[in-house]
Amino acid sequence: MRKMDEKTLTLGLDALWVMLSAVLVIGMQAGFALLEAGSTRMKNSGHVAGKQILSFAIASLAFWAFGFAITFGAGNSFIGTEGWFLKEGKGTFDSLSWANVPLELKFLFQLGFAGVSLAIAWGGFAERAKLSVYFLFGTIFTIAIYPVIGHWVWGGGWLGKMGMQDFAGSTVVHLQGAIAALVATILLGPRIGKFNKDKTPNVIPGHNQVYTVIGGLILWIGWFGFNAGSTMAVGDGFFGYVALTTNLAAAAGAIAAIVTAKILVGKADIPAMVNGVLAALVAITAACAFVEPWAAVVIGAVAGSFTFWTSIYFERKGIDDPIYAFSVHGVAGIIGTISTGFFASPRLVEITGIGKAGLFYGGGFDQLIVQTVGVLGAAVYVAAVSFVILYALKKTIGLRVTAEQEISGLDISEHGSYGYPEQLDPAYQPKTLAQQ
Amino acid sequence: MRKMDEKTLTLGLDALWVMLSAVLVIGMQAGFALLEAGSTRMKNSGHVAGKQILSFAIASLAFWAFGFAITFGAGNSFIGTEGWFLKEGKGTFDSLSWANVPLELKFLFQLGFAGVSLAIAWGGFAERAKLSVYFLFGTIFTIAIYPVIGHWVWGGGWLGKMGMQDFAGSTVVHLQGAIAALVATILLGPRIGKFNKDKTPNVIPGHNQVYTVIGGLILWIGWFGFNAGSTMAVGDGFFGYVALTTNLAAAAGAIAAIVTAKILVGKADIPAMVNGVLAALVAITAACAFVEPWAAVVIGAVAGSFTFWTSIYFERKGIDDPIYAFSVHGVAGIIGTISTGFFASPRLVEITGIGKAGLFYGGGFDQLIVQTVGVLGAAVYVAAVSFVILYALKKTIGLRVTAEQEISGLDISEHGSYGYPEQLDPAYQPKTLAQQ
Amino acid sequence: MRKMDEKTLTLGLDALWVMLSAVLVIGMQAGFALLEAGSTRMKNSGHVAGKQILSFAIASLAFWAFGFAITFGAGNSFIGTEGWFLKEGKGTFDSLSWANVPLELKFLFQLGFAGVSLAIAWGGFAERAKLSVYFLFGTIFTIAIYPVIGHWVWGGGWLGKMGMQDFAGSTVVHLQGAIAALVATILLGPRIGKFNKDKTPNVIPGHNQVYTVIGGLILWIGWFGFNAGSTMAVGDGFFGYVALTTNLAAAAGAIAAIVTAKILVGKADIPAMVNGVLAALVAITAACAFVEPWAAVVIGAVAGSFTFWTSIYFERKGIDDPIYAFSVHGVAGIIGTISTGFFASPRLVEITGIGKAGLFYGGGFDQLIVQTVGVLGAAVYVAAVSFVILYALKKTIGLRVTAEQEISGLDISEHGSYGYPEQLDPAYQPKTLAQQ
Repeated sequence: MRKMDEKTLTLGLDALWVMLSAVLVIGMQAGFALLEAGSTRMKNSGHVAGKQILSFAIASLAFWAFGFAITFGAGNSFIGTEGWFLKEGKGTFDSLSWANVPLELKFLFQLGFAGVSLAIAWGGFAERAKLSVYFLFGTIFTIAIYPVIGHWVWGGGWLGKMGMQDFAGSTVVHLQGAIAALVATILLGPRIGKFNKDKTPNVIPGHNQVYTVIGGLILWIGWFGFNAGSTMAVGDGFFGYVALTTNLAAAAGAIAAIVTAKILVGKADIPAMVNGVLAALVAITAACAFVEPWAAVVIGAVAGSFTFWTSIYFERKGIDDPIYAFSVHGVAGIIGTISTGFFASPRLVEITGIGKAGLFYGGGFDQLIVQTVGVLGAAVYVAAVSFVILYALKKTIGLRVTAEQEISGLDISEHGSYGYPEQLDPAYQPKTLAQQ
Repeated sequence: MRKMDEKTLTLGLDALWVMLSAVLVIGMQAGFALLEAGSTRMKNSGHVAGKQILSFAIASLAFWAFGFAITFGAGNSFIGTEGWFLKEGKGTFDSLSWANVPLELKFLFQLGFAGVSLAIAWGGFAERAKLSVYFLFGTIFTIAIYPVIGHWVWGGGWLGKMGMQDFAGSTVVHLQGAIAALVATILLGPRIGKFNKDKTPNVIPGHNQVYTVIGGLILWIGWFGFNAGSTMAVGDGFFGYVALTTNLAAAAGAIAAIVTAKILVGKADIPAMVNGVLAALVAITAACAFVEPWAAVVIGAVAGSFTFWTSIYFERKGIDDPIYAFSVHGVAGIIGTISTGFFASPRLVEITGIGKAGLFYGGGFDQLIVQTVGVLGAAVYVAAVSFVILYALKKTIGLRVTAEQEISGLDISEHGSYGYPEQLDPAYQPKTLAQQ
Repeated sequence: MRKMDEKTLTLGLDALWVMLSAVLVIGMQAGFALLEAGSTRMKNSGHVAGKQILSFAIASLAFWAFGFAITFGAGNSFIGTEGWFLKEGKGTFDSLSWANVPLELKFLFQLGFAGVSLAIAWGGFAERAKLSVYFLFGTIFTIAIYPVIGHWVWGGGWLGKMGMQDFAGSTVVHLQGAIAALVATILLGPRIGKFNKDKTPNVIPGHNQVYTVIGGLILWIGWFGFNAGSTMAVGDGFFGYVALTTNLAAAAGAIAAIVTAKILVGKADIPAMVNGVLAALVAITAACAFVEPWAAVVIGAVAGSFTFWTSIYFERKGIDDPIYAFSVHGVAGIIGTISTGFFASPRLVEITGIGKAGLFYGGGFDQLIVQTVGVLGAAVYVAAVSFVILYALKKTIGLRVTAEQEISGLDISEHGSYGYPEQLDPAYQPKTLAQQ
């Protein structure tokens, strides 16, 4: 029987944990595909689900070739400049040397994060953007947007050096994707039929709440890899604590959102509850390793409740964000990032070794300021670069399909066949027993 | 490179196994959501799927605050009385001290079980209970029902002391949920249209067998965490044995059920086959670590076959159990719990260190009696408490929606929008190509 | 606190990795169920999804009783002849002695592979084969077809002795299933309506592209267990490298396929993209541990692109392979197996210890010849045995349902109820609000 020594066993154990976490985080692509397809219309369902595979494929290649190097490679305080195609030299990936596992596993896990950020961004493009935009913006986002903020916070950049607390990426992953989604949804303009002439909004319900719910559950499960996996080490099982705060926040978010919806609009709305879960998970993403369980419940409840409110607010302001990407990932991303400035507990700050305790624990305003600077820095960069790129695309190839194509649906106009041919195309309609 | 010592490596390895198992068991929520949504009608689909998230959220908070302490906290032979909010003192969680991992992981794994038990209970409420009942009964079940039986068997209570063999909870998890479902379905009464005036039953088919099948497969996969994970330790890989018996039973259950259905009613019914898989898994849950592979095949086949028969029997007796929760989890839970009294093999009893060998191995009637007492004790307690609570709710807030609401469907009446708006609401019906 | 020694820790760590991998690979059954259900018509959906459970159940019992022994048991160069029902004697399973984990885990992991191979074979039977054929052919395939090739390559047989490189089964798992599917689809003949009188093909679109996409994503995720898990050991984390090449190939396959589809037929077809992912994964399955990352991208792109082209080619030749099983798993399986003859890198051949370097690395034609012999050997055996068995079934019980049954759909004709009763059976059609 084989026997490994303690060093190799430690490495192997960590490697297995990172592999499991990578599988969970990459698996979130299926969650987003279901969530987004369920939240949009039948005529766009094949497109909405399918673009998830397309965009993860693009991200996989672009992050391998360039994005990972810019995020984690040695360089300056703003970008990494070494490590293209995972090529490792002396000191190239020192920013990740605290983790014990083979570089390929670090890459796969981090690719999962880049993929999630891109998935969030697509929310703002839903039901009206051209397929070619997915190719172009997906590539650029994975190379020139996501990795820059990633480097700032996690890759040895200026925000990390300031002690910013963003354990698994409320800002790095979620806020980034959400800002890109917001810019996109504004530049694209609302979907046909979303607003009336008097600017009042119409409901455009998603076509399948079962998909939405299952998508939400897959994301909930995947978040155990996302947050707890960000320890990238097994050690004495601290990841269990991170998983606990993550789960408590999600639960509180679900209940807060459905109660808020019932109170505000009189409906115990199912998609709103799912969004509440996600908002809570987004918020606890930064805070999961820094806050006590009771604080996780508070943060989750606040994010779940507030997100519902802002999703209505933005809609009334004339912004058509089809799956509420900015509320769920942006607003909650900000809440979560800022939250450690209040709630970070000295005990946990010591364990993680990042930043300082929060205001409620006598830590003063220091950490709160750092967190706020981080949010603002990330938001400004992503908004500016996304705007420049999308504006350029708009003026050249155009962002949006024609009105006819939008009305026909993207499945038929961009892909040549319906996602549900038997329900949407008379040529394929099934015959009932009587007709046969 | 870091290096951990053998003690920490052992803890870390166990922690990783419990984490993986917790993910698999919590993931079963998605399985139940699909299974139950697929087995009910389109007009209730958003509600049925969505309440899975709601109830797991409720369970997460209630089990954290109170349920876990009552189940596993130090106390007396009937309930635990310490450890609220996972607060650990000297000896608080001695009932779980045999497992090596951080308390948070023990909690998450056990929360998965409580969540499954509650999911089973909801089966009996399907398609006619008020949303408020889900809030109230879910909370009470998680605090005052599930933890009591859990404590009796696993938390240092009287059934555990008697040597009851219930490795992963045929009684603790499944029978409990099933008894609550049975009480609920009787107190609620049958769905409108289920029975004719002459008391003959009508078929109310579930709306999507693909969901049912995928739900069943997710549960099958999740059961590897459920049963094999109940070792809560890696050791010499005994969990692999448990996974083997689990898989053999499930396979035998599938085949037994579809063959039984074909013989009894002339239909190789797909949902019946899925229920056969689940019944077999329920039955092997108690027995998985105590019986030989051939016995696992027998137990799975008996449970799969018998469940189909009882599901028809109860329907003919005027009980409308929409997703056959009592047959699948109750009847099979009893079969599984009793089965070790016959099949427990001396070799495996020695490995697990629980109870005695069964009748077929010359162990006499001792273990059989213990198992029977366990089933009866659990059934009586759960039936009595569920009845009192649900009867009180019935007489106060009422359990059931109005006939109009039931006919419209719970999606629109309890949540304000259809799960499938384009298929059920003329305002949102998609236009075919010809109409555009 | 417990403490295990280095030997037991090594075994435990490997056991945990194999368990995780087995869960991922067995989970692929859900992926195939969704992929195949989505790619076929509503009237067959319950059948297509449900037969996945049925056939995995059959495989579980048959592989446990006989298949595993024939594959891995001691015997001769052609079949194993010991180890029925996993019974272990001295030297019985020496072919797997290189792996460190309990026999039950080796079995479960390998069962996953046999189950995948059978799932692929069913593709060729879709939408017209009798249910009884699934029982019979499934049993025979699991005992007399799959294990033979498995033994030749992995169980100590003649192909393994020649140094054939098939790391996770491009030939053993995928090509085998695909050849059986091809034989079946030819013997069954095309579906009613597939070809016009002038032999031009009609499109019979699958009914749900969301299912197809989610199925594809589940398979992509599952492939991390399939390929990386085939190390069956954690060691120094080499499985991370295998996971990397697997992911790169899948990504390249997606993009290659959708671009090829756009160029060849003017449609950025979603199902074609999903098939491109799968073809790339099939191809990299043999090569994942032998080739450099850049080569993985090339292999994935070639397989993704070529598969689309061959799927059209075979259709034009009058072969109705409903879900393109032969193109996706057969053509790509051949590409992948042959690819190591070109791309196997000396560095990786040394790590794996199997075969020689490929032509592009100065290894000459040796490995290329071995790989070609392996492909031909496997293809001839599977084609011959599948043909004999299916031809015998055709002439005795018959392979195909009647034309009436096929038109009604297999759900109602073989199982007695629709998968979507509310959409296909007027008796259960939901009433819209207006009608109620």
